[in-house]
Amino acid sequence: MNPQSDRKMTMKRILIVSGTHGNEINPVWAVEQFGKIHNYIDNDIEFKYTIGNPLACEKGLRYIDQDLNRSFDLNKNSNFGNYETKRANFLVNQFGDNGNYPCNIAIDLHTTTANMGTSIVMYGRRSKDFCLAALLQNKFGLPIYLHENDMQQTGFLVEAWPCGLVIEIGPVAQNFYDPMIIKRFLIILSSLRAEIRNLEKNITKLPEKLTVYLHKGSIDYPREKNGNIKGLIHPERINRDWQTIKRGDPLFLDINGKTISYEGEEKISPVFIGEASYKEKNIAMSLAKKEIIFSTIEWIEDFFVT
Amino acid sequence: MNPQSDRKMTMKRILIVSGTHGNEINPVWAVEQFGKIHNYIDNDIEFKYTIGNPLACEKGLRYIDQDLNRSFDLNKNSNFGNYETKRANFLVNQFGDNGNYPCNIAIDLHTTTANMGTSIVMYGRRSKDFCLAALLQNKFGLPIYLHENDMQQTGFLVEAWPCGLVIEIGPVAQNFYDPMIIKRFLIILSSLRAEIRNLEKNITKLPEKLTVYLHKGSIDYPREKNGNIKGLIHPERINRDWQTIKRGDPLFLDINGKTISYEGEEKISPVFIGEASYKEKNIAMSLAKKEIIFSTIEWIEDFFVT
Repeated sequence: MNPQSDRKMTMKRILIVSGTHGNEINPVWAVEQFGKIHNYIDNDIEFKYTIGNPLACEKGLRYIDQDLNRSFDLNKNSNFGNYETKRANFLVNQFGDNGNYPCNIAIDLHTTTANMGTSIVMYGRRSKDFCLAALLQNKFGLPIYLHENDMQQTGFLVEAWPCGLVIEIGPVAQNFYDPMIIKRFLIILSSLRAEIRNLEKNITKLPEKLTVYLHKGSIDYPREKNGNIKGLIHPERINRDWQTIKRGDPLFLDINGKTISYEGEEKISPVFIGEASYKEKNIAMSLAKKEIIFSTIEWIEDFFVT
Repeated sequence: MNPQSDRKMTMKRILIVSGTHGNEINPVWAVEQFGKIHNYIDNDIEFKYTIGNPLACEKGLRYIDQDLNRSFDLNKNSNFGNYETKRANFLVNQFGDNGNYPCNIAIDLHTTTANMGTSIVMYGRRSKDFCLAALLQNKFGLPIYLHENDMQQTGFLVEAWPCGLVIEIGPVAQNFYDPMIIKRFLIILSSLRAEIRNLEKNITKLPEKLTVYLHKGSIDYPREKNGNIKGLIHPERINRDWQTIKRGDPLFLDINGKTISYEGEEKISPVFIGEASYKEKNIAMSLAKKEIIFSTIEWIEDFFVT
């Protein structure tokens, strides 16, 4: 095989991961349904489907030993014995760039209890990711959450692939099947497939620019000294993900009815507001700053470079 | 102490239980907030507040070993070593009719991921429960779910007290604080207090009748032979709790897009549609039949009999 044909062969294999968190069940259903409609090899694109965390799915838990979607710092990882570390290694050995069935795009499907709508999460500023994200945003106007420079939150699954996005849809309760949420995943999967085919056929035109929400950090609930939460997300803040706030806007309401306000100087957009599984991470919401990024032709060119 | 004063002393002690399921966190917050406003001894009524399942609350899980709210068959129970059995015994020893701090009303606060609104759940047809439920329905028009004659589902907490209701509010995700849900619990707690004070003052008038939804059974998801769910709640059914359905109305949608319909002869109202924690109980929804029950003066008279 010459390098050129090898490149093409690798390029078109897409890994679709659901159930990376075992209590996010709608993506698992959506992928099973998508797989029934779209054969594994569909024209120029080959799909690989996998359940990220099958044991956690079986038990209806987010994870067994640790969050799988923070377990892909494979070199840093010292917890070699635990289930998710083993599982992360297995997935990379199977489907990673040098794995048994090398995929060079990974799409990881998640749900949130927060009122985020359908959104795209990117980790860092990789050209290939920008290319796919720009095409999806152009089609649907989806918000893009660009996660970078947070030492507290590392080891995300898609970072272990040369190109990868998270699709995050909410609000939906954990372990609750919602046909509307499933439908939204199916639309995204079909569109991704269509956009990648257009890229292959060289008929893609990138939008001039894209809007991203740049991750600036996260804030915790107000807590007692013993760690108990002593303030709720304020009623004016709950369910208002992506909405820009300014100094003085309410964030929390404590048990005595006192409002705790945002004291930062810059305007910012809270996301993952009240996400149920982030309490243990000491995150009440994350804060993101709107930024415009202009497209470059390299995004498309890089997309074809392995 | 003469029997009369002893009766009065017992009558007015109300146990408010939250966190019977450890991942239903809004009632815990509501009760803490209610307790700050309403002192433990408030005119003629004494409140006792307790967390049903503190260890499960700490871990954000529904339960540790088994569902606490199915663990109050204290005589039948054979799992003496497990956490919830011990906890059920402790709660009855502390707050039961013959306990250290005898309460003769128990109000157990729950949330559901189903779109039930604010509702009252009664177990069996006890006069005292009817009395309280009728007063709340009269005030707010709340639906009453009357659970009886289900051998699969027994040992509910409030059954271990001479009078007791469950207040069930949804939809809300597990482990997600929602200030609107908390507000609804606070309204119910305040109203219960007001209604019980009116009963004490003998200024209560019962409504002529009340509407209950009588539990007729539960149905499971369609499943593969290996137990995997192979059909979702149908989009026309999801979030439509309490709505009456007839033969031929859709119930489930299987992965191939085939609709599975309701085949029963009688009109029925599904409730707890898609409740996340009931999948493990093989319940996709419960079915209830609307029934009118006429009030009797005995409901009030019995309310004062210990």
